[in-house]
Amino acid sequence: MVGFSASVIRRQQFLVRCLGGYNNSSKNFCSTIRMVSSMSGGGPSLEVDALSILRSITPSLDNSRHKGQAGKIAVVGGCREYTGAPYFSAISALKIGADVSHVFCTKDAAPVIKSYSPELIVHPILEESYSVRDEDKNSISAKVIEEVDKWMERFDCLVIGPGLGRDPFLLDCVSNIMKHARQSNVPMVIDADGLFLVTNSLDLVRGYPLAVLTPNVNEYKRLVQKVLQCEVNDQDGTEQLLSLAKGIGGVTILRKGGSDFISNGETVSSVGMFGSPRRCGGQGDILSGSVAVFISWARQHAAKGELSMSPTVLGSIAGSVLLRKAAAFAFEIKGRSTLTADIIEHLGRSLEEFCPVSR
Amino acid sequence: MVGFSASVIRRQQFLVRCLGGYNNSSKNFCSTIRMVSSMSGGGPSLEVDALSILRSITPSLDNSRHKGQAGKIAVVGGCREYTGAPYFSAISALKIGADVSHVFCTKDAAPVIKSYSPELIVHPILEESYSVRDEDKNSISAKVIEEVDKWMERFDCLVIGPGLGRDPFLLDCVSNIMKHARQSNVPMVIDADGLFLVTNSLDLVRGYPLAVLTPNVNEYKRLVQKVLQCEVNDQDGTEQLLSLAKGIGGVTILRKGGSDFISNGETVSSVGMFGSPRRCGGQGDILSGSVAVFISWARQHAAKGELSMSPTVLGSIAGSVLLRKAAAFAFEIKGRSTLTADIIEHLGRSLEEFCPVSR
Repeated sequence: MVGFSASVIRRQQFLVRCLGGYNNSSKNFCSTIRMVSSMSGGGPSLEVDALSILRSITPSLDNSRHKGQAGKIAVVGGCREYTGAPYFSAISALKIGADVSHVFCTKDAAPVIKSYSPELIVHPILEESYSVRDEDKNSISAKVIEEVDKWMERFDCLVIGPGLGRDPFLLDCVSNIMKHARQSNVPMVIDADGLFLVTNSLDLVRGYPLAVLTPNVNEYKRLVQKVLQCEVNDQDGTEQLLSLAKGIGGVTILRKGGSDFISNGETVSSVGMFGSPRRCGGQGDILSGSVAVFISWARQHAAKGELSMSPTVLGSIAGSVLLRKAAAFAFEIKGRSTLTADIIEHLGRSLEEFCPVSR
Repeated sequence: MVGFSASVIRRQQFLVRCLGGYNNSSKNFCSTIRMVSSMSGGGPSLEVDALSILRSITPSLDNSRHKGQAGKIAVVGGCREYTGAPYFSAISALKIGADVSHVFCTKDAAPVIKSYSPELIVHPILEESYSVRDEDKNSISAKVIEEVDKWMERFDCLVIGPGLGRDPFLLDCVSNIMKHARQSNVPMVIDADGLFLVTNSLDLVRGYPLAVLTPNVNEYKRLVQKVLQCEVNDQDGTEQLLSLAKGIGGVTILRKGGSDFISNGETVSSVGMFGSPRRCGGQGDILSGSVAVFISWARQHAAKGELSMSPTVLGSIAGSVLLRKAAAFAFEIKGRSTLTADIIEHLGRSLEEFCPVSR
């Protein structure tokens, strides 16, 4: 994705101004957005100073804080087939510093996810079609949303999709959860089968500025086809990403790849530093859990009027660079053997390097 | 909580005398209660010499002892939703030095809690309403108490509440367990949803000197509202804590916070040393399991006439300072990534530092 146009540069300058504005109101923030020469195109790069952004939104820790103030995250995912993905997402949130991490999954998946870690709170409330009679669907669907609603207002961010599967009844229930999250103004990071759901039901997120979509190559392709009704064009990739985000009403899109590109239809940023050549499955789950935490932190600043830029964009940038650093650390030690759990074990070390506790 | 009054100081002096009395009959005990200047108020601090208290009640180990003499603890908690909390509480008891640690939980929760550790004895005896027909409730309730009664007299302390949930039928069964524990003079540490139960049914603990309540900010607020029918007043926090403990007939209250405050209606002590700024969920479970062990140890001294002060107060102080030290150790190593399991891994090291095996 090397293309960019004059309008993109203008938007990029707007981003720099925004971040400069942020700088005025927060002593921790470094406004530098590096407009360095693009390696590929010879023009200005979209690479942002992701480390400064990460530092600016990561809260300092002190003894006056109570449980929950550093973030309460919930992952909606986990079914008969998939149990690892929601675990990776939820545990990553804790390892970064969230205080509480929940998982809402199917009854089959719950004991397994619980057994991975006693640190998670796992709610076995979802059902797949194979276990539900048609005449019970309405009542079960109502019960699912009732259970989630008990908790909804306590959550700072939801992650929708890791290990969700594609069962139609389950996806209907998850659509309801997303509608209620939106009514309650709870941000959502949407990945994996959550993107399958959203690509087929764009209204679930259209125009919701607190939604982040995190597509990989194939998921991005399907989104472009559905929204822009064309194929992915990497010659003009930046413009296309802007159009896509704008086309869904200003949601934030984190396009994963060799470099990650982030846009909410107003600006495009990229994060290309660090990373690993290992492509083991599960890294997207670390990203979704991480972005959820950083969004919740960024929104704490936003609530104090300290941000003039979207918390979903800042959270995506911070989540991206943290995963890339942790993956690099893990690869340094484990090489070809690197698994997702190895990367998760380096989230803490990476965050400490960027943002020491004692700063 | 900075306020205190002349009556509090008088009670504090009473505490010092009590501990001095204790000193006369136990060579291990150090009577120093430091009446140092308060950081916040300029007057005498309520900070006790928690380390000396911990040392005084921790038993020395020798080869003449049998299994069970260092403590048999049972946690009542664990339901379909929550399995981590009872595990944390029960395993913490073992890590500190209890010989045996049981968990009484629901049938759904048992296999998961068992899977966390083969060290625990897990009884799948509780039921939630969703799995019980109305006409079976009486017989199931009778069976639950029959099962627990088989064990009751062997336990040195119960922990009521970690991961208990709020199912009304389950809470009815737990109320019965509490009544039987009280009849058998078994101490109880009550936390989490156990506090929800007790706040709504104060008679379960009223006037029982072997009950310890361990409320966090929100649980404390609800207790104050219910018992004192007013709001929490931190300007006169010490007096309010005394009134609260007295208002429930002399139960011990361990109010958790930046500093922990402990009162049984006669004295107020605080423990503010060590600690960590990380507020991940689950630390309260470590505390409840730890306090249970220390109470059982303190009661062994009490049985020999070696204590002139409440074993529940001494156990609360020792549990508080041990958790704070372990949390500080874990945070030193893991920083923002610190999770509850990391803190549990440092319980042993902390206790060894305070109270070396070879002393």
